[in-house]
Amino acid sequence: MSFALPVYHSPDFSSSFFAAAPDVRWETAPADGVAPEGFHSTSMYPEYFKIDGTWRLAEESRMDASVVLRPDGRLDVVENRNLRKGDRVILGRSERGEEGIYMHCSGFLAGDAAPDDQFVFRQGRSRETSYARDYDELIELLRYERDHGNILWVMGPAFAFDAGARAAMAALVENGYCHGLLAGNALATHDLEGAMLHTALGQDIYTQISQPNGHYHHLDVCNRVRRCGSIPAFIREYELDDGIICACVKKGVPLVLTGSIRDDGPLPEVMGDVYAGQNAMRALVKRCTTVICLATMLHTIATGNMTPSFRVLPDGSVRPVYLYAVDADEFVVNKLLDRGSLAATTMVTNVQDFIRTVARGLDLTET
Amino acid sequence: MSFALPVYHSPDFSSSFFAAAPDVRWETAPADGVAPEGFHSTSMYPEYFKIDGTWRLAEESRMDASVVLRPDGRLDVVENRNLRKGDRVILGRSERGEEGIYMHCSGFLAGDAAPDDQFVFRQGRSRETSYARDYDELIELLRYERDHGNILWVMGPAFAFDAGARAAMAALVENGYCHGLLAGNALATHDLEGAMLHTALGQDIYTQISQPNGHYHHLDVCNRVRRCGSIPAFIREYELDDGIICACVKKGVPLVLTGSIRDDGPLPEVMGDVYAGQNAMRALVKRCTTVICLATMLHTIATGNMTPSFRVLPDGSVRPVYLYAVDADEFVVNKLLDRGSLAATTMVTNVQDFIRTVARGLDLTET
Amino acid sequence: MSFALPVYHSPDFSSSFFAAAPDVRWETAPADGVAPEGFHSTSMYPEYFKIDGTWRLAEESRMDASVVLRPDGRLDVVENRNLRKGDRVILGRSERGEEGIYMHCSGFLAGDAAPDDQFVFRQGRSRETSYARDYDELIELLRYERDHGNILWVMGPAFAFDAGARAAMAALVENGYCHGLLAGNALATHDLEGAMLHTALGQDIYTQISQPNGHYHHLDVCNRVRRCGSIPAFIREYELDDGIICACVKKGVPLVLTGSIRDDGPLPEVMGDVYAGQNAMRALVKRCTTVICLATMLHTIATGNMTPSFRVLPDGSVRPVYLYAVDADEFVVNKLLDRGSLAATTMVTNVQDFIRTVARGLDLTET
Amino acid sequence: MSFALPVYHSPDFSSSFFAAAPDVRWETAPADGVAPEGFHSTSMYPEYFKIDGTWRLAEESRMDASVVLRPDGRLDVVENRNLRKGDRVILGRSERGEEGIYMHCSGFLAGDAAPDDQFVFRQGRSRETSYARDYDELIELLRYERDHGNILWVMGPAFAFDAGARAAMAALVENGYCHGLLAGNALATHDLEGAMLHTALGQDIYTQISQPNGHYHHLDVCNRVRRCGSIPAFIREYELDDGIICACVKKGVPLVLTGSIRDDGPLPEVMGDVYAGQNAMRALVKRCTTVICLATMLHTIATGNMTPSFRVLPDGSVRPVYLYAVDADEFVVNKLLDRGSLAATTMVTNVQDFIRTVARGLDLTET
Repeated sequence: MSFALPVYHSPDFSSSFFAAAPDVRWETAPADGVAPEGFHSTSMYPEYFKIDGTWRLAEESRMDASVVLRPDGRLDVVENRNLRKGDRVILGRSERGEEGIYMHCSGFLAGDAAPDDQFVFRQGRSRETSYARDYDELIELLRYERDHGNILWVMGPAFAFDAGARAAMAALVENGYCHGLLAGNALATHDLEGAMLHTALGQDIYTQISQPNGHYHHLDVCNRVRRCGSIPAFIREYELDDGIICACVKKGVPLVLTGSIRDDGPLPEVMGDVYAGQNAMRALVKRCTTVICLATMLHTIATGNMTPSFRVLPDGSVRPVYLYAVDADEFVVNKLLDRGSLAATTMVTNVQDFIRTVARGLDLTET
Repeated sequence: MSFALPVYHSPDFSSSFFAAAPDVRWETAPADGVAPEGFHSTSMYPEYFKIDGTWRLAEESRMDASVVLRPDGRLDVVENRNLRKGDRVILGRSERGEEGIYMHCSGFLAGDAAPDDQFVFRQGRSRETSYARDYDELIELLRYERDHGNILWVMGPAFAFDAGARAAMAALVENGYCHGLLAGNALATHDLEGAMLHTALGQDIYTQISQPNGHYHHLDVCNRVRRCGSIPAFIREYELDDGIICACVKKGVPLVLTGSIRDDGPLPEVMGDVYAGQNAMRALVKRCTTVICLATMLHTIATGNMTPSFRVLPDGSVRPVYLYAVDADEFVVNKLLDRGSLAATTMVTNVQDFIRTVARGLDLTET
Repeated sequence: MSFALPVYHSPDFSSSFFAAAPDVRWETAPADGVAPEGFHSTSMYPEYFKIDGTWRLAEESRMDASVVLRPDGRLDVVENRNLRKGDRVILGRSERGEEGIYMHCSGFLAGDAAPDDQFVFRQGRSRETSYARDYDELIELLRYERDHGNILWVMGPAFAFDAGARAAMAALVENGYCHGLLAGNALATHDLEGAMLHTALGQDIYTQISQPNGHYHHLDVCNRVRRCGSIPAFIREYELDDGIICACVKKGVPLVLTGSIRDDGPLPEVMGDVYAGQNAMRALVKRCTTVICLATMLHTIATGNMTPSFRVLPDGSVRPVYLYAVDADEFVVNKLLDRGSLAATTMVTNVQDFIRTVARGLDLTET
Repeated sequence: MSFALPVYHSPDFSSSFFAAAPDVRWETAPADGVAPEGFHSTSMYPEYFKIDGTWRLAEESRMDASVVLRPDGRLDVVENRNLRKGDRVILGRSERGEEGIYMHCSGFLAGDAAPDDQFVFRQGRSRETSYARDYDELIELLRYERDHGNILWVMGPAFAFDAGARAAMAALVENGYCHGLLAGNALATHDLEGAMLHTALGQDIYTQISQPNGHYHHLDVCNRVRRCGSIPAFIREYELDDGIICACVKKGVPLVLTGSIRDDGPLPEVMGDVYAGQNAMRALVKRCTTVICLATMLHTIATGNMTPSFRVLPDGSVRPVYLYAVDADEFVVNKLLDRGSLAATTMVTNVQDFIRTVARGLDLTET
């Protein structure tokens, strides 16, 4: 049961339906960071816009952003805060051609049965859902993506609390299954505390025994990384070689660490400005073909919102972007569904078990 | 890191402390199912009672039951509803010798460090707790118990929804890691639906695809088992050989299925009287040395209440009874702690992942 | 905004669609408690069966039961376990007339907009859903039902832990807003412990302070009620006059207390046989017009399964049965939806706050 | 049962215990944002430092920060990221005088019974805990604090989804029960959407009916506020007068809105730099005497970490700071406990019900 990319079916723009549609309208942004009234807002699906009689795809999309028609004819999907005064912003709030906009939800579906299947597949995912097939499919997908795609991991702060999960994730990184990592200050600090002291928040990550004055471990790690000036400098100075962050640094996997009001520290690499942080996250998202979000409502929703359901490859072909969200709490994965990110596979389980199961499925030896 | 039973340290009854304590008092039960006022109620710990100057252990204990002094001198731990008029019921509500009762909480602790370690170990178990060591210890424990102990599994209704989890559990049964099973009508019906139709509540247990009119699968399985008169007769008639219940029947593992007001059916083996059901459950609990409760608040608490922390072996030695509770919901495992069942290892995860991880740890090939 | 019953629209059986349908088929039950293969299973909606050319409603329905054609022509909805050998059981697994069976889902809907509204209303109910209108509507409904309907309350064990919630519920009972109560042994025992000792499981229900040896409170209350022989005898002997159970006894509100394997005691009124218990529950359900389930997954699902969406009044008119399920956990209320009990209003909140808000909405003074 | 401030008991520094302790040590910060090794980190409790033989209190404390000895002798509690090179940072990791540091946990406790009571009070708070007394005490506290204290509210994004909750909170603001508000972009945007369109994320906040193209409501509100340049300008231009934000603007209640990577927009007032945001939050926290956190894990933990358990009043007296955390999820309120913020009252309920119950307790008429 080896993985194969589904074929993308473009709309048939030669049909009279599309020929009859008007050109799309636009208006210039009245000020930096402000869209004109009636702006069109994107979805995660491929959207086509009729410009001078031709239907054109906005290639790098995301949810809830505007579409800017560049002077060279390119269609850029731009968050409203990033609009510049004078940008030509597409208008229109219908997506079935009425205003020259067409949202194509079914490009990857084969035949009529598929939508129903999709529907059934989706509803009522809970701790009682069967996940055996999801695991099998994910393993196949990861094998494919390692060599042909780009796998982006998104991690909550607790992921580094368990020695086994941390070793499994490090093995995934070292074996090429991670092309980018999005996280916050806490995940990185906990993981580096594990590398330096074998604890997380002062508790041993294997025996769970709390160390005397262990709450200083976290604070000391933050302070030392800050003194060293960067995570790589810290790793060198203390000769660390263990865990997720070390593996990423060793393998050159790009990290985007974004800040939150909950942070201690922060580590030097953490971006304090969350909107600059969003931009940096999206820069990694724009390359990725599979996203796996683990145990973080904040980062999962943030990433879900900026992840389209498709990617245009260099040869012009269109492939799906796969989005997984794994959390112990139904509420979190359901939030993703509520936000409209329907094309997600959600799994309700403890992420420690999830990652160890995935690593074993990929025949990785945990350290 | 192979498993070894901890040594039990009896209280030193030769000390002046114990010598100075009075004999315990008793009074007869005034009616069937009624204890005398002031009755002593047991805990899950070993409890000793001073009778005619001698401290004697109530060997088969449980929580919240009375202690009956039999004419032959035996101490039976009896639920109040099972008392008979005239039974001599121990009185007293202090457990440090004041009334001839001594509860021994620290019999398995070695030295001074242990209690603190225990304390730290216990608190704050959540989805963010590290479970790597728990898995390792459980694997070692199961290897030991397969040959030297008695492993009792307690399962919630959802356990059979996933093909992988079901296969893993069946492999555990077939390889000798299950000496008894406590469950309800739903678990058995779902599992037999899987065996007959590869669905649970009409949804394929691997592909998750809902079958047309699939809600009848459950009802038909119930009805057919009832027509056959028993689960084994049903398995024979339909030539089933797959899943948890089939494995138990094949291996002769005793099942106790108890009813609830939520049941359809029920299957013929299900005990409709819940107090008779409790008696049958306790009969299995009295033999067991490890209990593993999976994804069921009702059965977990019921079993936890009747499971003591120790077992007296035929040679008179005392060993621990290990109790695990695994659930996706912190609330459920915390309920167990609230009820006083402190000597439990609680794990917060999806039980499907749990059982597959355990099976792999035991080198079992899943079908 | 006063409450008015929606009008029920029967199907138009004079239409050619219904005329063309065949008579329904039946077969006799092959044994006590066993349905013939192909039996039809009911839903919570009104279902009509064509018998001798006439479409007839099964008046007292429930989910997942068989329909028995009595010699006198009556259609009884009977759980399979309650079938008797020779009963004429309706066959058929389609509900749009193909086999003489018609399920009428839209009887209370007015016009075309309604189904969509229903759909939107239903999905995604969580802690973040707006409940202001639900409260307002429930208050109006309860005012109506007090005098014209029958309100059945279903309560989980924790409901009596809070002095305020207990007083609010008692006020509802005393003021005529409760025509029946379904619960388990624990709810009744906790509430009576509150009446006798102002604690629940040994913890003061107002100050939350744990009493010395407080865990005996629960056991003593159980034992004393058992000695007295009944709840009313216990209330008389100890001169209690406080809380939910006392209010029910004083007002003559029927209680059905059903057992579970988790029970201590039990109290004398608790039905140990859960299938007899189901029968007793359904006897109350058959009278009710509004059901409110609070903080109990077990009793909520059990009751939901036996509650139809409609009631035939003595004058032959058909009205809705309203079903509310209130729980702090989305998982519990979603279980109700998964089970098919779609016509429920689910609210995610702490039931203590819920009941106090309802009592205030009804201008009841809490004691 | 009117509220009275507990009296603070300073340690008796005249005792030989304190006299025998050494002076505290310090070292200068080696760089901006970096503490010297061995830095002391503060707790939420009052901490005294022995300097030149005199014990002095760090007056404006918080958790996990350093203590800087200013040239004028003042002790400032400064987050490590805010240290400047050369700041004299207190060293020491014991808090019982050994190194000239004394943490005073019991200043507000009266007599010996209190600590135990505290202990019992604290553990096992869940949906099943009795909250009647907590509500009563909170009502009394709010009446007191309105005139004599400073009440800071911390709100999650979902708080504005319900018309009733929103009206209740607005009534609290308008009647003087709110001296400051901490929230994120979403809360403010949802609430302003309610003011302008009576929806939140496109769903009517009373009827729950989804509006056509309602997902644009949120985006349009963001965009319009951005065009107007500020929330007050937006309120004026669109003549809004409804909801929480409008009430705060009208009453001059200071808002601190901090950003997250999940934000759309953001509104102009939202601080994109989360560390500047922390500073602004702490500026409000430094004035407050009661903090109430509602339905937000992120803001609750962030605020909890920067909230000390005490406040030094202008007359030099010391009073408690009360911290409440209310959430539907045990996990969230338990996180607060895990982080060490022990002096919190946690309540597990839906915040909509919570706020309406509080408003009614204060005899506020909801609009």
